[in-house]
Amino acid sequence: MRIDEIGEQACSVAKSLAQIGDAWSILIVREAMYGRTHFSDFVRHTGAQKTVVSARLKTLVDARILKRVPYSESPPRYEYRLTLKGRDLAPALLALVEWGDRWIEPENGTRLEFRHECGERVGTRVLCPSCGEMDHDDVIVAHAGPGYPDGLAVPAPGTRNRRGEAD
Amino acid sequence: MRIDEIGEQACSVAKSLAQIGDAWSILIVREAMYGRTHFSDFVRHTGAQKTVVSARLKTLVDARILKRVPYSESPPRYEYRLTLKGRDLAPALLALVEWGDRWIEPENGTRLEFRHECGERVGTRVLCPSCGEMDHDDVIVAHAGPGYPDGLAVPAPGTRNRRGEAD
Repeated sequence: MRIDEIGEQACSVAKSLAQIGDAWSILIVREAMYGRTHFSDFVRHTGAQKTVVSARLKTLVDARILKRVPYSESPPRYEYRLTLKGRDLAPALLALVEWGDRWIEPENGTRLEFRHECGERVGTRVLCPSCGEMDHDDVIVAHAGPGYPDGLAVPAPGTRNRRGEAD
Repeated sequence: MRIDEIGEQACSVAKSLAQIGDAWSILIVREAMYGRTHFSDFVRHTGAQKTVVSARLKTLVDARILKRVPYSESPPRYEYRLTLKGRDLAPALLALVEWGDRWIEPENGTRLEFRHECGERVGTRVLCPSCGEMDHDDVIVAHAGPGYPDGLAVPAPGTRNRRGEAD
């Protein structure tokens, strides 16, 4: 299987990665979350080459994560804005930021803090509607949902232990 | 900037992506979350070529996301287990799964459901400690934390609107 075929897997992680693209795409989405909309800003702030930014913007527009909006007629100019689908990537990006802050050079402290308009820091949590926030010892089990293809083995129950063992 | 240099950016998204690697690495972490530990299982269940799995396992071990543990002396055989740092990727992966279920072929229904041992479905949420769960109209603002490099511009306050506008 080639990397551009991973979206054919019966897995939302694989399908999501296939739509988003690579690390450059994720940095473009990051910049769009900060309100940046122009090609030149994406180039400057992601550090990617122009040809890379151009290709990733096309992927993200095709996946309806960004939308291409004209803002000038002559000369024709476009800007890129997150769709609702694109903005809905915020929880996944925030979870990735939090992981990086916890595990990569944590001695330096948090690099960016994301605060609600009330002033408090927001964060992602894994929650059970009955039991509340998940603890280190909680076991989460994968079950086939209605969209799971017939005939595919479901990952064995009980093996998906989020952080069950001591390290 | 080359893609293997993105970890030098002052951003936990970029640093995290640099450590994790590409989509294949993320699928290997997914399989490890399901309890798979053997090279041959990673090849079978990710669909990646052996050389790709081998390279990505090395990246993940170097990043201390997986650990390589001997389980046979003659012949020497190793298995790969998630570290605590690796297991702590679960919230980010779960958020990505949920995004894929919401936005990619949602008419088919959820592919996999992740249930707490109590039987209820778990999910990721973005929470404010004062106000509770974030709503579509909530504005989240990025502030420089203690680990933010001196002299770098902080993304403009107020622009990081998670899903503020109608689509």
